[in-house]
Amino acid sequence: MADLDLLLEELVTANRILAHEGVVDGFGHVTVRHPQRPDRFVMSRARAPECIEVEDLMEFTLDGTPVDPKGRKPYLERFIHGAIYEARPEIMSVVHNHSPSTIPFGITAKKLRPLMHMCATIGHELPVWDINDKFGDTDLLVTNMAMGRDLAKTLGNRPTALMRGHGCVVAADTLRKAVWISIYLELNANLQMKAMAMGDVKFLSRGEVDAVMARTSGFTVDRGWEYWCRRAGRSAGTLEIN
Amino acid sequence: MADLDLLLEELVTANRILAHEGVVDGFGHVTVRHPQRPDRFVMSRARAPECIEVEDLMEFTLDGTPVDPKGRKPYLERFIHGAIYEARPEIMSVVHNHSPSTIPFGITAKKLRPLMHMCATIGHELPVWDINDKFGDTDLLVTNMAMGRDLAKTLGNRPTALMRGHGCVVAADTLRKAVWISIYLELNANLQMKAMAMGDVKFLSRGEVDAVMARTSGFTVDRGWEYWCRRAGRSAGTLEIN
Amino acid sequence: MADLDLLLEELVTANRILAHEGVVDGFGHVTVRHPQRPDRFVMSRARAPECIEVEDLMEFTLDGTPVDPKGRKPYLERFIHGAIYEARPEIMSVVHNHSPSTIPFGITAKKLRPLMHMCATIGHELPVWDINDKFGDTDLLVTNMAMGRDLAKTLGNRPTALMRGHGCVVAADTLRKAVWISIYLELNANLQMKAMAMGDVKFLSRGEVDAVMARTSGFTVDRGWEYWCRRAGRSAGTLEIN
Amino acid sequence: MADLDLLLEELVTANRILAHEGVVDGFGHVTVRHPQRPDRFVMSRARAPECIEVEDLMEFTLDGTPVDPKGRKPYLERFIHGAIYEARPEIMSVVHNHSPSTIPFGITAKKLRPLMHMCATIGHELPVWDINDKFGDTDLLVTNMAMGRDLAKTLGNRPTALMRGHGCVVAADTLRKAVWISIYLELNANLQMKAMAMGDVKFLSRGEVDAVMARTSGFTVDRGWEYWCRRAGRSAGTLEIN
Repeated sequence: MADLDLLLEELVTANRILAHEGVVDGFGHVTVRHPQRPDRFVMSRARAPECIEVEDLMEFTLDGTPVDPKGRKPYLERFIHGAIYEARPEIMSVVHNHSPSTIPFGITAKKLRPLMHMCATIGHELPVWDINDKFGDTDLLVTNMAMGRDLAKTLGNRPTALMRGHGCVVAADTLRKAVWISIYLELNANLQMKAMAMGDVKFLSRGEVDAVMARTSGFTVDRGWEYWCRRAGRSAGTLEIN
Repeated sequence: MADLDLLLEELVTANRILAHEGVVDGFGHVTVRHPQRPDRFVMSRARAPECIEVEDLMEFTLDGTPVDPKGRKPYLERFIHGAIYEARPEIMSVVHNHSPSTIPFGITAKKLRPLMHMCATIGHELPVWDINDKFGDTDLLVTNMAMGRDLAKTLGNRPTALMRGHGCVVAADTLRKAVWISIYLELNANLQMKAMAMGDVKFLSRGEVDAVMARTSGFTVDRGWEYWCRRAGRSAGTLEIN
Repeated sequence: MADLDLLLEELVTANRILAHEGVVDGFGHVTVRHPQRPDRFVMSRARAPECIEVEDLMEFTLDGTPVDPKGRKPYLERFIHGAIYEARPEIMSVVHNHSPSTIPFGITAKKLRPLMHMCATIGHELPVWDINDKFGDTDLLVTNMAMGRDLAKTLGNRPTALMRGHGCVVAADTLRKAVWISIYLELNANLQMKAMAMGDVKFLSRGEVDAVMARTSGFTVDRGWEYWCRRAGRSAGTLEIN
Repeated sequence: MADLDLLLEELVTANRILAHEGVVDGFGHVTVRHPQRPDRFVMSRARAPECIEVEDLMEFTLDGTPVDPKGRKPYLERFIHGAIYEARPEIMSVVHNHSPSTIPFGITAKKLRPLMHMCATIGHELPVWDINDKFGDTDLLVTNMAMGRDLAKTLGNRPTALMRGHGCVVAADTLRKAVWISIYLELNANLQMKAMAMGDVKFLSRGEVDAVMARTSGFTVDRGWEYWCRRAGRSAGTLEIN
C-alpha cells in the first residue's frame, strides 16, 4: 500500500480506538493533515467514529471546503480542524471530542492540570474557550472559520484546550500522539475530580511536565497504540517497539 | 416491509439500544404512537427491554386498554404512556426509565439542567413529580389513568420530567429522538453530579438550549442512531446521513 | 428433569448472574434450602461463582456439616447460611457477598436505606454487624456457628444486613428474589452515595417500602430474572411472565 | 512442560489478567524472580501487558542488565523490579502499575489503608515515594538502580508502596499473590475514596490486618486466580482448590 493509503487506514483505526476507549460516542472527530499537501486535511464524512470506513474519508482545504465530496455530507464542525492546521504548521493531527470527564472542567472554575506522568502530554494547564464570549447564544457548534480561528487562538501553541459546555480539542504532531493525548486527557480529568474531593492536590511540576513531553516519543506512543488497536480489533501497523 | 412493520422493528431496536446503553435494566419501556391510528400506541408485553421481539408488541388505546392481547400480559405502567399521548398530540414516542444518574435528582433539592450541547434536548429544567403528593403511600407505580394524567400535567409541554424515587419520562416527536434524549439525559445527570461537586456550575443559557433544540434534526439524531444500533447489534434502517 | 435438578441448575445460574452483574467477584456465595429436606441447604464447594457447575454443589446440614463431600472443599463461611436457615424457617435462599457499594455503609455512620421503588425490597434500613464486637480481632470470616448465629441475630427478621469491613447478607423466600435483592441493594447503595453528596435525601416512606415489598411477586421478579439470564448466557427456565 | 515453562506461561497470564481487570492499561509490568537463579528475574520486553506472549519474556540480572536480549527492547523501568528483588530475598514477584484509584492517594495527604478483609493484604498503610525528593524534576520514570533502590527503601518490608504522580509497586512471595494484591489494592483505593466522602471511616484494626495476612494462603488466592483466568480467557493451571 502507498503511504497515504496506510495513513487512511490508520485514521479509520484512530476513530475506532477513540470510540472503543469512550473518548467519543456517536460524535467527535479525528483528522490528519494531508502528508503531501499541507494545505489540506483528511476527515470522515459526518458519521459516528465507530462506523467509519476508508470510503468515508474526504479531503478538505484548510478553510473547510471539501475537495471532492461525491455527495458525502461533511461534519458541520470541520472548521475546528481547519483553523488549527492553518494556525500551526507543525500540527499533523487534531481531535475534537466530548470525553465525559473533561466537561465539568469547562463549566466550573477548576483548572485542569496534569497530575500523573502518563497524562503530562496534555500540557501545563488547559485554557477554556467559551463560544458565547464572542458569538453570543449559539447551538455551541463551531460552524465557520471565524469561530474556528477564535478557538485556535485560545488554544495557542498548547496541545489541548477545553470548550465550555461542549468538549475539547487536541493537537499533535502525529495521529498516534493525538489519540494518546485524548485518552490520557480523559483519564487525568477523571482522576483530578477524585483527587480534588480528597483535599489539596500535588500536580506535576513544570519541570516534570516538560521532561515527560520531551520523552514521549514514537517508542512510547507505539506501546499504547498496539494495546488500543488490540482492544479495538484493528491491525496496529508498523511499530517502533518491534 | 410495510411502514408499520418497519416501525415495529425499530421499536424493538429502541428497546435493545436503551438496554445496551444502560438507560434501562430489566425494567422501563419505550413506546410509539400508532402512525395510522393516533388514538392508539404500541408497547411490548411486560418483558425486559433486552428480551423483546416483534411478537411481544401490542396495541393499546390511549386509556391503556389492550386492543388484542392474545393472552399477553401488559406492563402495569402503560398509563404513563397513554396519558402523555392523550395530552400531547404532537408526541409520537415516550420512554419511561430508571436511568441511574437521574434518580438522585428526584430525591434531592438539586435541579437537573442541561450543561452541554449534546444534552440540551432534555429541556431547560426537569420538573419533579412526586406520586405521594396526590396519591399518598403507594408502591410508586403509575397503575391507572388518574396517576398517568397527574404525571402528564407535571410534564406539561416539556420533553422530560423526573419521578421522585422512581425514574423519569421522556416525550418526543420521533422514536429515535426519544432514544436520543433518554441517553443524553443520563449523561447530563451523571456529569452534573460531578460538576456540582467541583463548585458553581455554568449551565447552558436559555438561548443556547433553544438553539440546540431547534437544530437537532433527523440528520443529527441519525448519526447517534447508527452508532447505537451498531453497538446493540441491530440494523439501523434508513438514515438521513446516507 | 426432577424438581431438585431444576433447582440445582437454577442455583448455578444464580451464581453466574451475581458474578456477571458485579455483585460477587471470585468470592461470595448463594445457597438454597433443600426443598424436600428443610434441615439441609445446598451450596457449591469453595469456588468462584463464575466457575461453578452442578457437580460443585454439595448438601449441608444447618450446622454446616457436609453430607457427602466426596473430597470437595466447602466454603469456610458456610455458617452464615446455616445459621440464617436455622433461625428463619421461611427463608429459602441466602446470599453473602462483598458488593462494592455496600462496603462504605458498613464502615461509616451513614445508614443504608431504600431510595427508589426497585430497591425497596432491601427493607427499611440495614443493620450493621461488627464481628469485632463479640469476637475481637479476627480475619473477619464467619467460620463457626457461634459467629453465624450472632450475625443471624443482628439480621433478625429483615431481608438484609451489612457486615463491617466485609460485605452483606441477603435472605429471601425464593432464590430468584435473593438474586433480585442482592442486585438492587448494590444499586441503592451506589445511588445513595451519590445522592448524599448532593444534600438531604428523601428516602421512600415506610408505607411505600411496605407497599413495594407486598407487590414484588414472582411476576415482577421473573422479568428481572429473564433479563439477567440473557446477559449471563443462561436459560431462564419457567417464567410467570410467559 | 518443565516448571520454568509453566511459570513463564503463568507470567503471561498474569499480564493478561492485570490488563483485563483494569489494573494496567498499555503500561505497567509484572515480573517473577527466576526460580532456579535467584540473582535473575523474568520480565517481558517493552510491550503492553495485554499483548505479551512467552516469546517476549527476557531474563535480567538484578541490576537490570538483560542476559540474552536477542534485539528485544527492555522496559525502561526494569530497575523497580531489580532493586526490590535485590533488597528482599523472600520476594518472588513484583508488580508496577498505574491503577487509577491509587493515583489520588499519591498526590494528596490522605493515607491509603485497608478497609475490608479482601484488601488487608495491601498491608497496614501505604508509604508514598516521591521521586522529586531525591532526584528533582524528572520524567518520573525509575530509569536506573539509584532510583530503584531509593524506591525499595521506601517500600521497606511492606507489600505495597505508592509513587507520587505515577502509580504503585506490589511485592509478594508468589506471582498469584502479587496479582491478588494488585487487584484488591485498586478496589480498596476506590472504596476508600467513596467512604471518606461519607464521613469518618472505620478501617480494619492492626490485629485484623495481621490475621488476614496470615490466612491468605494458596487455597484462597487460587480461588481468585481461577476466576480471573476465566475472565481473561486463560488456563488457570494447577489449583489448590481442586
